Parts: sequence; C-alpha cells; structure tokens
Amino acid sequence: MTDEAWGWEEARWRDVVGRVRAGRPLRPDRWKDGARCAVALSFDADHETSELRGGGTSVGRLAWGEFGARVGVPKILRVLAEREIPATFFVPAVAALLHPAQQLEVIAAGHEIGLHGWIHELNSGLEYEVERDLLQRSAETLEQLVGVRPVGLRTPSWDFSPHTLRIEQELGLEYDSSLMADEDCYELLADGEPTGIVELPVEWIRDDAVYLAMDRFGGIRPHTPPHEVLAIFACEFDRAYADGGVFQLTLHPHVIAYRSRIGILEDLIDHIRGHDDVWFATHRDVAAWARRHAA
Amino acid sequence: MTDEAWGWEEARWRDVVGRVRAGRPLRPDRWKDGARCAVALSFDADHETSELRGGGTSVGRLAWGEFGARVGVPKILRVLAEREIPATFFVPAVAALLHPAQQLEVIAAGHEIGLHGWIHELNSGLEYEVERDLLQRSAETLEQLVGVRPVGLRTPSWDFSPHTLRIEQELGLEYDSSLMADEDCYELLADGEPTGIVELPVEWIRDDAVYLAMDRFGGIRPHTPPHEVLAIFACEFDRAYADGGVFQLTLHPHVIAYRSRIGILEDLIDHIRGHDDVWFATHRDVAAWARRHAA
Amino acid sequence: MTDEAWGWEEARWRDVVGRVRAGRPLRPDRWKDGARCAVALSFDADHETSELRGGGTSVGRLAWGEFGARVGVPKILRVLAEREIPATFFVPAVAALLHPAQQLEVIAAGHEIGLHGWIHELNSGLEYEVERDLLQRSAETLEQLVGVRPVGLRTPSWDFSPHTLRIEQELGLEYDSSLMADEDCYELLADGEPTGIVELPVEWIRDDAVYLAMDRFGGIRPHTPPHEVLAIFACEFDRAYADGGVFQLTLHPHVIAYRSRIGILEDLIDHIRGHDDVWFATHRDVAAWARRHAA
Amino acid sequence: MTDEAWGWEEARWRDVVGRVRAGRPLRPDRWKDGARCAVALSFDADHETSELRGGGTSVGRLAWGEFGARVGVPKILRVLAEREIPATFFVPAVAALLHPAQQLEVIAAGHEIGLHGWIHELNSGLEYEVERDLLQRSAETLEQLVGVRPVGLRTPSWDFSPHTLRIEQELGLEYDSSLMADEDCYELLADGEPTGIVELPVEWIRDDAVYLAMDRFGGIRPHTPPHEVLAIFACEFDRAYADGGVFQLTLHPHVIAYRSRIGILEDLIDHIRGHDDVWFATHRDVAAWARRHAA
Repeated sequence: MTDEAWGWEEARWRDVVGRVRAGRPLRPDRWKDGARCAVALSFDADHETSELRGGGTSVGRLAWGEFGARVGVPKILRVLAEREIPATFFVPAVAALLHPAQQLEVIAAGHEIGLHGWIHELNSGLEYEVERDLLQRSAETLEQLVGVRPVGLRTPSWDFSPHTLRIEQELGLEYDSSLMADEDCYELLADGEPTGIVELPVEWIRDDAVYLAMDRFGGIRPHTPPHEVLAIFACEFDRAYADGGVFQLTLHPHVIAYRSRIGILEDLIDHIRGHDDVWFATHRDVAAWARRHAA
Repeated sequence: MTDEAWGWEEARWRDVVGRVRAGRPLRPDRWKDGARCAVALSFDADHETSELRGGGTSVGRLAWGEFGARVGVPKILRVLAEREIPATFFVPAVAALLHPAQQLEVIAAGHEIGLHGWIHELNSGLEYEVERDLLQRSAETLEQLVGVRPVGLRTPSWDFSPHTLRIEQELGLEYDSSLMADEDCYELLADGEPTGIVELPVEWIRDDAVYLAMDRFGGIRPHTPPHEVLAIFACEFDRAYADGGVFQLTLHPHVIAYRSRIGILEDLIDHIRGHDDVWFATHRDVAAWARRHAA
Repeated sequence: MTDEAWGWEEARWRDVVGRVRAGRPLRPDRWKDGARCAVALSFDADHETSELRGGGTSVGRLAWGEFGARVGVPKILRVLAEREIPATFFVPAVAALLHPAQQLEVIAAGHEIGLHGWIHELNSGLEYEVERDLLQRSAETLEQLVGVRPVGLRTPSWDFSPHTLRIEQELGLEYDSSLMADEDCYELLADGEPTGIVELPVEWIRDDAVYLAMDRFGGIRPHTPPHEVLAIFACEFDRAYADGGVFQLTLHPHVIAYRSRIGILEDLIDHIRGHDDVWFATHRDVAAWARRHAA
Repeated sequence: MTDEAWGWEEARWRDVVGRVRAGRPLRPDRWKDGARCAVALSFDADHETSELRGGGTSVGRLAWGEFGARVGVPKILRVLAEREIPATFFVPAVAALLHPAQQLEVIAAGHEIGLHGWIHELNSGLEYEVERDLLQRSAETLEQLVGVRPVGLRTPSWDFSPHTLRIEQELGLEYDSSLMADEDCYELLADGEPTGIVELPVEWIRDDAVYLAMDRFGGIRPHTPPHEVLAIFACEFDRAYADGGVFQLTLHPHVIAYRSRIGILEDLIDHIRGHDDVWFATHRDVAAWARRHAA
C-alpha cells in the first residue's frame, strides 16, 4: 500500500480539504459612511522574534529585529499620524514584552493591536494544547500591557494549523487574517459548519517581505525595485476600489521602514487618499462592518 | 566501473535521448479562415491539488488553491466571455471532483477541458501500470462530469515520463501539450516511430507561474513586475504572428486572477485582437488543424 | 521538555536579546565643516578569500577573486581619485598578504584600511580564543603591511559573534561596522553596559552583492538591473540627506567594478556631489565625529 | 587540529591560489584592420547534454535540449548570416554526435567550433586521466565530424579543474575561455610559469543563462526582463569600446533563441554595428591577435 497522494481514498482528500473552508462572502454594498472601498493596513511587528522563533541567536539578525522597534515602528507611526490613518499592528507577545512602551504608543495613536503568536512560532508543528496555551497567554499578555483584549489573529507566517480555527472559536476571537481563499471578506467554515469568524484575507502579493526580504544564507534577495512594489500595491488597490471591496496590506517594520522604502507606504497612502470615498480602518473595524452589513 | 554519464556507452545515451523525439513539423500555411496566427490559451486549474499532490495538508495553501476555484476561474471566464475567446482548461480529476459544477460552466461557455493527471502527481516517479490507471480514471471522471471525453493531455508540472507517450497512444489521445522541442506544433516520435500524436508545445517563458509564483519556505518569489510579464507574452505573440505560427500560453487561476495580475490577460488579449487575422482556438482545434493542414 | 523557542523561559530570550544592543544615538547636529550629511563609502576587498574561507579551491572562483585585485581595486581607486573622495577598504589579512603592494596604494591615496577578519571566516562558529587570535593577528598583519593600525572592524559576512564586541574592546577598536539596529550611528551596549564603541551601521539594502551577486550552484542571480540598484542607493542617500544623517554604503571590487556596473558608483558619487553640503569621509572619521559631536 | 581554512598554513593557501593565475595582459593597441574594439560572440550548444551530464533522463528536459538544435542553432545562424558576423560555437562531443550535420553547417558558415567537454561533465570532480581522456576524445570527435581540429576550450559550466591547464598544454590548445580574472585577454600562468595559452575571459554578467535560465525544481527563475538583459550587454560593450578592449559574450541556443529573446541578440549586434571600427571575430582569431600584438 502506498501513502502517496495519488493513492489516497476520496474520503481522505475530501476530509483534508474540508477542514477549513471559505463560507458565505461578506461583501457589504457600501462601507462605513457610504465609502466605496475599505483599506486595511497592517504591520507585523515581529522584531527580534524573527530570529528567536527558530532558536536563533545571531547578534546581527537580532540587531535587524531591533531596527524594527527602534526605527521602524516610530517612522511608521509618524507616516500614519501625518495622514490620520488608523492601522492594525500584529505583535508576537515576546516582541510586545521586549518593547512594552511602544505598544502603549500604538494604542494611544488609535491603532489596533492583534495577536501574532507567542514568539512567532509555526503553528502547524504544534500539539493542540500547546498552540492553545501559547495563544491564550499571548492574548493575556497583550491585554495586560495595553488594557485592550485583542479580537483578531494573524498566524505567524500565515501558518494556520488544523487546530487554529477551533482555538480562535474557544478564545472568542472575531476575525482571522491569515488565509487567502478570496480577495474580500468571508465567513470561515469548520468541517462545513459556519463559525461566525470573519476571514479578512491576506495575499503574498500584498506583502512587502515577498519582494524585499533578504536571507543571507538562504538565497532570498530583494530583487523587486521599490517603485515596482508600489505599482503592484497601487494596482491591487485600484481594482479593489473598482470592485467596491477591501484592500488589505501586510507590511513589516524591519522591511518597509528603510529610507529607500518608506516612500512606498507614503506614496501608496497618498495615491489612495486621492479618492474621497475610501474608508481607512483597522482590521477589527473592517471585519465587524463586513459581518454586520454583508449583502 | 562508474555510472557517471561521462562513462556511459554511446548506445545508452542514444537510447535515452531517442525515446521521445520531435518528428515532422506541423506548420500549416494558413490557419482556419485564412488566419495568419493561431492563439491557444490554456489554464491549468490545479486548485487544491497543488498542495495535495505531495501529501500536503496545509490549511493556508489549501485556501490558496480554493481561491483558484472560488475567485480565479469565474474571473477568467468573465474575461474570456467579454472578449468571446475560447480556451482550454487542464483540470486534475480530483480538482474537478471538488468543483464539479464549475467544469460544467467551463464546457457550457464553449471551452475545452483537457487531462491534467489525477491529483497533479509527478509521472516520472510512477510505474507504467499506475500512471496508466490514473490517467484512464482521470479521463473517465472528466467524461462523467461533463459528458465530453478529453482528447489531450498536459502532464502535471510538464513531467512527461518514459511511459507517457505509450499511454497517450493507448488512450487514443489526439494531442499532448507538455513538451518543448519546438515553438510550433510537431508530431511525436516514439523510439523513432511516428505516433500520430500532435505536440502543441509549451514553454516556461509562456507560463505565468515562472514569474509570479511564491513558495514561502522554498525561496521562490514573484520578482518580475506584471507589466514585464505582459511585455514578454506580447513579444512571444508578435513573433509568432510574424512567423505565421502558434502562440500558446499557460496560465493558472491561482496565479493570474489577482487584481494586480488579471490585467495581464486582459491587455494581452486586447493586444492580440488588434490584429484581425488571428485565430483564437482551443488546444484541441489548433492541434487538429495543424495535423490536417501541415504544409 | 522541549527546547523549541516557544518553550524558552523569559530569562533565556531576554538574555539572548540583551547581549549586544543599540545604546544612545550618535547623531551630530552638523557634520564636519557644517555639512548636512556624511557619506561613508566602503569596499570589502575579499578577493580570493571569498573562495578560500570555506576551504574552497575552485580555480574559476579564485580567478574571480583575482579580478577584484587585478581590475577591481585599481578601477575603484581611479574613480575615487578623479572625484577626490576618501573611502574605507575592509581587507581580510590573507587578501592583504596576497596583494601587499595594493594596500600601500590604498593608504597612499588617503583611504582607510579596516579589519575584515583573517580569511573571511564566519565568527559565529569560532571559540572566543580563536576569534580573538585571528583578529589580533589580522590587526598586526595590516599594521605591518601599511604602517597604520586599523581602528575599526567589519565582520566578514556581517557575522558578529557573541564574543565579537568583547574582542573589539580588548583590541581597543574605536568602531564597528557590521550591525544594523539603526540607520545612523549609535553606541554599542554589552549586556546593557555602554562600551564606547561606535556602530556605523550597515544594511543589506546598501550592499551591491545583494542585488548583483552570482552563485552558480546555489541559485543566487543578479536579477536587479544596474540602473535600479543605482536608484535604490540614490534614494537611500536622498533621505539620509533630508534626515541630516549618514549615508553608508558597502561595495565589493569583484562585484561593482565591471564595465556595466562601475557606472553605478560613478553616477552615485556624481549625484551626491550635486549637493554642496555633504561630507565624504572614511568610516573612521565619521565614527569619530559622531562620537565627539553627538547631540 | 582543525582543517578549517582559518587554520591553514600560509604555504597552503598560497599554493591553492597560485596554481592558475593571470599573467601578463594581452591588450593590443589596435585590433585587426585598426579596429578599436574586438567582439567575440559565443554560443554554448549544450543541447541534450544539459540533462544527460548529471545522469538525467527527463523526457521534458531532453526536449528542451532538442529545441536548442532543432530551433535554436538554425535561428542563430540566420541572425549571424544576415549580419555577416562570425562567432564561436562551443559544443560537447555528445551534442555534436547527436547533431552531426549541424556542425558542418556551422563550419560552412565560417564559424569556429571549440571544445566544451565530452557530455558537459564537471571537470573538478574528475581524475586527471579521466579529464584528459575525455577532452582528447572530444577533440578527435569534433575533428572527425567537421575536419577542423579545435584550438580552444570552454570548460563546461566554467568548471576549470586543477588539471585543466596542464591538459590544455598537452593537447596543444591555443586558448581557454573559462576564467575571469580580467575583462581583457591575458596569458595563463601555471604555478607561476607562463604557459603561452591565452585566456579570453568570460563573465557571468555576459551570459544569458544567468538572467534567463529556469530550473523547475531548483528555484532558478528568468526574472530579468529581456530589455534589461540587452541593456546590460550593451553597456558591457560600450565600455569595452571605450577601453579599446574585448567584448566577449556567452549565449546558449536553448536560452536565447526564443521569440521573445532572439531580439536581444539582433538588437545587440545592431547596436554594436552602429560603430564602424569594431572587429567581429571568432574566439580563436581574437586570442591569436591578442597574443601576437600585445602591447
């Protein structure tokens, strides 16, 4: 007997596929204040956990992570403040514990903080109990630090395990932002059953690290010129606007905040603000609106 | 005795090279209705089988595959319908079984459905009997679902095994579209003997995934800007038109159908339609014409 | 008990993160002669040690390294001389011993030579005693060759070990240029204590090899067009100028000195020289000024 | 005792570095007929040996190699004939044996055929006797097929072993074109001794496969847009022209001859021909001139 996928029984592949599935679309006719398009910017503030997650202790890569907190987040907060734009920061609990004052600044500026794992761990290698314990402690840690309980999860590396959805339900979360079965919001199904949890979908196309990350010994290089990254993001927005949908974006402080790249964020926001019927909102607010006003 | 290739006997490398070979060119003087150039667009609708094929069960990557069926194919059908263009969809049997209604829509819109393996398996690792059984069951499955028996095969990942050609003959297929010994159609030879099977050649250059795919842990990144992908495809067409040949293209719903990329397809078709003596056709029709009217 | 990072005690990850940290910013109000911006160009003259470092003996890759000394450095010296720009060359001791006359030329032209390891070894795999011995011998070798004791270190491959900072202190170095926790100079902290050592930070973004390196069997390719590399470097300078900060750049003779790339350096310098209040200086002079005049 | 390179004795790394070295530059004041610049185009006609070399038997990749002979070389010969340009084809013996008539066409058109190994083997893994035997048989095979004994070698993958130079001397070759210690011709030294063999240097920068190759399972992608490849090649020529040196280029029939890429070759030649004091010549003629007329 082979265990190769071509030899799997139909029940087996149907079961694997059916665990987590996209349910009904959550596409409002209009967004808040009659806006035509919702814009949900997010920043995954991984900082030192990018290195720690795999047990790494490289001084150089930890300094890179430190850049995210020391230079990246302040620069991003300034760009957002100047343009009066709210956004969502997904922060691993360990990164928040390393930089607690910064989390308060983020909240004070009107932004949302969402869950992003304990130490940026990969969920799919964890037992259910471990994953649940880490996520629960992460929620408690963030709440203790900033006084607001997070209501949404972005799984680290978008690594959504077979247990993640159940844990999101158990923790009472309102939305997830790690999956990509659609370009607009939808309801997540667990083994075919509606869960009430909103998926605000991500996409590699709308992630800065895809184009601009660098991995010295692994062969990843930032080969896409910054102006081309801007053009891709702007085009994603233009069509989301035409569709009356959501434009969701995932950026990283240690990737986007450099002198030659922060202009991508500035110019993108300015391009979007050239349209007067756009609603900039946190992931939480977009997900809530989508759920309540789905057509 | 070494088994390194530099130590192989001449008979051995001649035997390996001679198994499947390009025979006589199948280049008609004119295409249907006197057209100067034939355009054969194809969409490899792998969906969830991209993940399943290797035994993977990642929720995130399955959601990515789901995007292909939920958003990708409908968007592509719309683009084709608006421009009244026929195309060929190569669909693994498992993908068709997961999305049966969609296959009927594809056929109802006048497109062709071709074979693309059972679960997107790699043929070159299979025994002859297994490969044959999977392909036979795939043909029966597609026929049962849509009422039309497929007449052409695109091997998954263009992984054409030493047994594939024999199996194509045994199944009575009319064409293959997995090899690349020419830019225009040719007859396949098996150990030097003509088989009557038409090769409608593919090329990495004319494949969206080459430029735009993303593999989080493997290092593949979508570094080519979309407008450059369009320019490459358009240039391939321009010279095919100048040559009076075939312009064949391989796209994937889970790669091309995003907001910032679907314009590649729209603009490419519009560029081609700027020429009035072009014949848009399914792979089946192009292969049949090439066989019947070869110069 | 797991040793996965998600199971680490808080003391453990705090300890790992705290070893080497960014301390107070060293940002002068004005640079020398009232300049608004400091420009620190560096050339990592690895030559044959790129191949030797890992025990490699490839004739082809050694010839590539030889290019750096035979063609690269002379061409760079000419570009700098024509524009009267000082710069810093970081040279592994073995590369200096292979090309001793060239080191004298570099010094005679008014440039700085800094430490860059013995044979471009990776520090993080070394015992403290070995790393210290290699660096001490490197300093002595360079001093014997050119009569000037180096005062700064760029760790090979920016691989800063947990022992590097202590060794820099023991050797009495004035600055390091291997870390990246900021875009402007800062003081390095060892376990939270100020060390007096200035970090003049590097960044992959400002490194030619990131965009232009080639690794035949490892998959790295020079996919970024030279004019885009120039645009990125120029943008990094423009914002450094706007910030009143430092523009630091890392180039390699065996990467930048080719006919189609040396124009990146020429055009970049000419772009910068279009501003009259810029101070071109060696890393040593920039670090010293930053320490003495920090706001 | 460690065997890490940082622990090597000075004699050891000096010995490794000194085996093959660049000797005196071979830079004539003027090229033939007073030309200011020499242009040496080469085509590595690997065809099926790209797959066979490593023992591979993939039908798909062999078809790709077949493209090089079936479509690639004829198209290239046409481009060269239309512009009356001589070039050098480096052909593995096995590729020549698979396509003997094509080698005669190449010679009849006035081009040179040079050595390129037996089956595109990697030399650095071979014993001296094996490498010598393969190269000797390759030279005899090419001579028997076309009636001209080759006088130059391009090692497959530019993999020049510690034995290659000695074997080149024993076979009485006049030039090598596999190394890269300079941009212009130079004499090769063996352990410090002049060999009389001219190196006509190659460079990854001037190789089409670097930018345009595709390796389905290895992660290499053709991310550089064709017009950017042309711009890099043209810039390499422009500076070679300014230097009064050699512009050498390495192309591959199975890479450059596609509809969207052959224009790189056409446009490049047309750009070069816009200068009237350029000498297009085979590698053999350029090497011979450089040796005889070195300043």
